[in-house]
Amino acid sequence: MTDNLSAILYKKQDLRLEQRPIPTPKDDEVLLKIHSVGICGSDVHYWADGQVADFVVKAPMVLGHESSGVVESVGKKVTHLKPGDRVAIEPGVPCRTCKFCKNGRYNLCADVVFCATPPWNGNLCRYYTHAADFCYKLPDNMTLEEGALLEPLSVGVHACRRAGVTLGSKVLVTGAGPIGLVSMMAARALGATKVIMIDLVKSRLEVAKQLGADHVVHVTKTTSKEEAAAKILDALGEQPDKVIECSGAQASIRIALEVTESAGVIALVGHGEHDINISIADAACREVEVRGVFRYVNEYPLSLAMVASGKVDVKKLITHRFKLEDTLEAYETARTGAGGAIKVVINCVKQ
Amino acid sequence: MTDNLSAILYKKQDLRLEQRPIPTPKDDEVLLKIHSVGICGSDVHYWADGQVADFVVKAPMVLGHESSGVVESVGKKVTHLKPGDRVAIEPGVPCRTCKFCKNGRYNLCADVVFCATPPWNGNLCRYYTHAADFCYKLPDNMTLEEGALLEPLSVGVHACRRAGVTLGSKVLVTGAGPIGLVSMMAARALGATKVIMIDLVKSRLEVAKQLGADHVVHVTKTTSKEEAAAKILDALGEQPDKVIECSGAQASIRIALEVTESAGVIALVGHGEHDINISIADAACREVEVRGVFRYVNEYPLSLAMVASGKVDVKKLITHRFKLEDTLEAYETARTGAGGAIKVVINCVKQ
Amino acid sequence: MTDNLSAILYKKQDLRLEQRPIPTPKDDEVLLKIHSVGICGSDVHYWADGQVADFVVKAPMVLGHESSGVVESVGKKVTHLKPGDRVAIEPGVPCRTCKFCKNGRYNLCADVVFCATPPWNGNLCRYYTHAADFCYKLPDNMTLEEGALLEPLSVGVHACRRAGVTLGSKVLVTGAGPIGLVSMMAARALGATKVIMIDLVKSRLEVAKQLGADHVVHVTKTTSKEEAAAKILDALGEQPDKVIECSGAQASIRIALEVTESAGVIALVGHGEHDINISIADAACREVEVRGVFRYVNEYPLSLAMVASGKVDVKKLITHRFKLEDTLEAYETARTGAGGAIKVVINCVKQ
Amino acid sequence: MTDNLSAILYKKQDLRLEQRPIPTPKDDEVLLKIHSVGICGSDVHYWADGQVADFVVKAPMVLGHESSGVVESVGKKVTHLKPGDRVAIEPGVPCRTCKFCKNGRYNLCADVVFCATPPWNGNLCRYYTHAADFCYKLPDNMTLEEGALLEPLSVGVHACRRAGVTLGSKVLVTGAGPIGLVSMMAARALGATKVIMIDLVKSRLEVAKQLGADHVVHVTKTTSKEEAAAKILDALGEQPDKVIECSGAQASIRIALEVTESAGVIALVGHGEHDINISIADAACREVEVRGVFRYVNEYPLSLAMVASGKVDVKKLITHRFKLEDTLEAYETARTGAGGAIKVVINCVKQ
Repeated sequence: MTDNLSAILYKKQDLRLEQRPIPTPKDDEVLLKIHSVGICGSDVHYWADGQVADFVVKAPMVLGHESSGVVESVGKKVTHLKPGDRVAIEPGVPCRTCKFCKNGRYNLCADVVFCATPPWNGNLCRYYTHAADFCYKLPDNMTLEEGALLEPLSVGVHACRRAGVTLGSKVLVTGAGPIGLVSMMAARALGATKVIMIDLVKSRLEVAKQLGADHVVHVTKTTSKEEAAAKILDALGEQPDKVIECSGAQASIRIALEVTESAGVIALVGHGEHDINISIADAACREVEVRGVFRYVNEYPLSLAMVASGKVDVKKLITHRFKLEDTLEAYETARTGAGGAIKVVINCVKQ
Repeated sequence: MTDNLSAILYKKQDLRLEQRPIPTPKDDEVLLKIHSVGICGSDVHYWADGQVADFVVKAPMVLGHESSGVVESVGKKVTHLKPGDRVAIEPGVPCRTCKFCKNGRYNLCADVVFCATPPWNGNLCRYYTHAADFCYKLPDNMTLEEGALLEPLSVGVHACRRAGVTLGSKVLVTGAGPIGLVSMMAARALGATKVIMIDLVKSRLEVAKQLGADHVVHVTKTTSKEEAAAKILDALGEQPDKVIECSGAQASIRIALEVTESAGVIALVGHGEHDINISIADAACREVEVRGVFRYVNEYPLSLAMVASGKVDVKKLITHRFKLEDTLEAYETARTGAGGAIKVVINCVKQ
Repeated sequence: MTDNLSAILYKKQDLRLEQRPIPTPKDDEVLLKIHSVGICGSDVHYWADGQVADFVVKAPMVLGHESSGVVESVGKKVTHLKPGDRVAIEPGVPCRTCKFCKNGRYNLCADVVFCATPPWNGNLCRYYTHAADFCYKLPDNMTLEEGALLEPLSVGVHACRRAGVTLGSKVLVTGAGPIGLVSMMAARALGATKVIMIDLVKSRLEVAKQLGADHVVHVTKTTSKEEAAAKILDALGEQPDKVIECSGAQASIRIALEVTESAGVIALVGHGEHDINISIADAACREVEVRGVFRYVNEYPLSLAMVASGKVDVKKLITHRFKLEDTLEAYETARTGAGGAIKVVINCVKQ
Repeated sequence: MTDNLSAILYKKQDLRLEQRPIPTPKDDEVLLKIHSVGICGSDVHYWADGQVADFVVKAPMVLGHESSGVVESVGKKVTHLKPGDRVAIEPGVPCRTCKFCKNGRYNLCADVVFCATPPWNGNLCRYYTHAADFCYKLPDNMTLEEGALLEPLSVGVHACRRAGVTLGSKVLVTGAGPIGLVSMMAARALGATKVIMIDLVKSRLEVAKQLGADHVVHVTKTTSKEEAAAKILDALGEQPDKVIECSGAQASIRIALEVTESAGVIALVGHGEHDINISIADAACREVEVRGVFRYVNEYPLSLAMVASGKVDVKKLITHRFKLEDTLEAYETARTGAGGAIKVVINCVKQ
């Protein structure tokens, strides 16, 4: 057990597979043999651009944060896991002492250590140590691939919880990429009785339909917000009361503000353009709310229970699988979306 | 159109079928041709005992409050309904001016006019007028029988919403009668990932299993709360965080307080024994909450959307059907539970 | 009793005092002898521009909606009020049947009849009828002037409740006009431990200080959002977690998004510019929420209790008093702010 | 610096003052020179009975958990405190890894280490180490005695927050001991417009009046719940919507269930009798809620802000002061309530 092949981003467009030492778990950590690692849009951005928002890759960093693995060994204070346990890995470990950590919103902790967010290493590698309490044991009826997908699913669950999606909600999801899709799935699990998705790309909407969207609406760069709103109303028969905005585009936010019902909520999951031009006064008169969304908090157990109980079939998102040795090809596939790629998963187990 | 055969309770055990004049709708009312009327436990109690809690039948009263019908004519201010529309009837019309009506909890209005609660007539008859805004138009994919069942379903939905059932909830339902069953269905629609039901009657638990309960536990009059709690923990693998108490029995409340997880909620739907002996201090130290539940409020649209979208199949509850002319037989069936009766429905349309 | 002198806005800048017939109350209404009527910014806008947002004065309309009066007679269904009772008048009467009316958010009712919002008449006159349940009896220790001021105070209370102001909140109020001032007062009553106000006008900030603001910060048209944020942080010693935005200005919203703490809330009370350019992505990453605010809902009883119990001294807002006969002078004072006008109140009682 | 005189409870009624070694702070701890320590009812119970509920003193334990002190030295990871800082000490340090710690309810952590709850030592001594993040720096305008009193004040704040006390609340506090008094103070700070207190002891009600209760009602052991409710209604003019139950007595809970308004909340702070006989069905029909309350969570910063901003004057609770050397006399005073003792505070600084 010396092989710890790791996918390391040195800088923009410089991704290398190299050996790293196998780490030793601290008292409250576990050593994990990584199994599956999904590729997220942010991973691709770091690779392509060397940065995401204000996070800049300044030193070599192991990629990967949508992961699962098998416990290899445990630190001496760890009691709830043992070698052989299969776990999903929640990638961010907060400080545990700030007020956000104490009041149940640890995703807002300023000192969180988050996999593959500079300067912190991720876990697209063979072996990796992690805080034991952020590793969730998978039940027998779940695969390690499903375990890795709890990460994007948790993003969708958190977005829907922030938006207050519940029984009877009529949900608009803007953007039908992976996050849009898991948000749609989460909305249904939370009781939404209608989910409609919009996107610029027709093939994505086809997938959305297959995965459970009740309605889809195709828009283009020239569709006005009034036109888009009319199409949504036409398809849904009424105004959506919850919007999960996954595109980060000004145009989508403008549509959301136009179409959302009085007292409705728009959750901003996609964080795209910095300065945007929007018309918020009209929506404000209808007491619409716009809520920021960041990662997830306390949602891993929920996502796990959703998958374990059969409420969602998250495996359907996986379109491509690669070995760790073929990481570059995997990233290239995720970047281009070749072959209708939705979720690309890398298997890190030495064959 | 002169036949308005009506099922009238004169007093305890004196239920008669008689003609009544067909009423004329006020400006904001509709005249309805009643289609289906379910029999509720309270109906049977009024018939058998002449009273339920402090509500005493002092004058002849038309029974029936789980109803649907077809709009026959509309008052002059009614715009959202027209003759021929098929509707579910929410049976309680509140005062609209008290603080509970204004703050979104009209079920607590002290001046509500509620079908078949003395002194107010119900709608187990051919023709009936009702406030138009408490009539909900059924979509084409819903039957009028399903419309009638929105009433008990709304009780279950309200109970679960009061308990805060949501994604990932582990729900214990105590009592597997009709209200327990709709609560179980509602819990699943709200995202509960595990629902366990307990009852004294094994055949009811069989039905519960068939209708979707993940686990059932049989208890007897001599099962201690510790034993019951142990069985529940054993079946569920963990403590329930939400309890929907549908039996009204002291023993069930004692089990609920014993088994509920810290920070959990017990919703009291069944209102049975007046003075009960419970041990609340231990549960209070775990910040368990006990919340009263009364009827429903703003839940009809949710129940309708649940059924229309296929989230629940409420028809499965119906075990027996009778004609209005056979009301006595229907009530007798509901009272004895003969033939495994769960929900008995009376068809009021003149054949 | 035939004199019903009324202040009628015929069109932009055409405000006339004319006699109108004394109305007769319906069964659920009361006839009121109007006592005090405050002038609101919107009143001045209607007078100056003939419109506010999309509401255009197309026919002569009685002005006035911040009012109190004495019950002169009551409709036959009215039981909680009697002639001689002194009442505050909540000026909007909703439809009572739509879903917003039923779920406790009647301020969002699309069919509300609201005083002095076209086409509905207000109550800047001698006699006026109103829904009895939207008239709140004043206790002996409150004056009718205080009763009239419950209207703007309710705006402030609603804004603070929408923002979730509570014990320990650190509140930034942007804009120190009458609504900013009542918001500051409401914030303190809700438990805020620090309130800071910013404005372009130094004299307003002086008043804010006198009325209870802990800190004030003067900004100018050229102050950058970063500079403003720095000043606020410097004065407050930490970030505000609640912002009550009362200016409607793009610049203020930009400052709010810049300075609000993670998980904080910005309540938009001022609805000004239609299209604004803001940087929402950064705030969204901190899960800041932006919530629209519209009028008030169920806040009159709270405002009344606040004043009655001495939690706020709303009288301090009144700087000028006029007789109904001098309405034009009163409006001119409110428009220009001459003499340091904050709240101008008109007395409608015939002397 | 070798004197660490400590008040150690060996067993029931065996409290000794002995020297203990001065501890060394861990990396994330501070060493504190204890200043003030209040005596709580539970301290007295441990001393008198050797146990509280299921917590039994099995080995010598230092008493004291209502404390403040001055930082003597800091562990190497501590950055927000430095020697000389004056701090209030939140006495319970939770595990930081269980789900309650992560979802913002760390007071329900099963593995909390809580001062002077067996088997954990308290801080009624000269020197004591504590997790740095549970030490709150006092501003210059607060005394160390006030810092110690943040502990009981936090109990009151938590109780009121659990009950949902807010602007306009009409609050009944049952029991006028120290916890009842701080609950009353907290209720006012949260915006309650009326607070009424009941007790069996007239002298306590006198104090309650002086400290700010709007109304007091004296009850006796023979007062029926109907009589007590009538007295409360008479004094308050309406039903309370929030009850802070601080007595733990069955009689008080029965009164609370009788008198609470529909939709109201009863918070159980006092955890007294194990099996109680109550009539919950009637209250359940009015959707009254009964919520358990345990200690406090995230309330220290709120309590500190309340005192610092002048919203409450907690010093008024202190009736007696003793030196550490006179601990036995202090405990005897607290036990008997001699001299009208409300809060007894021990000064631990070597004179």
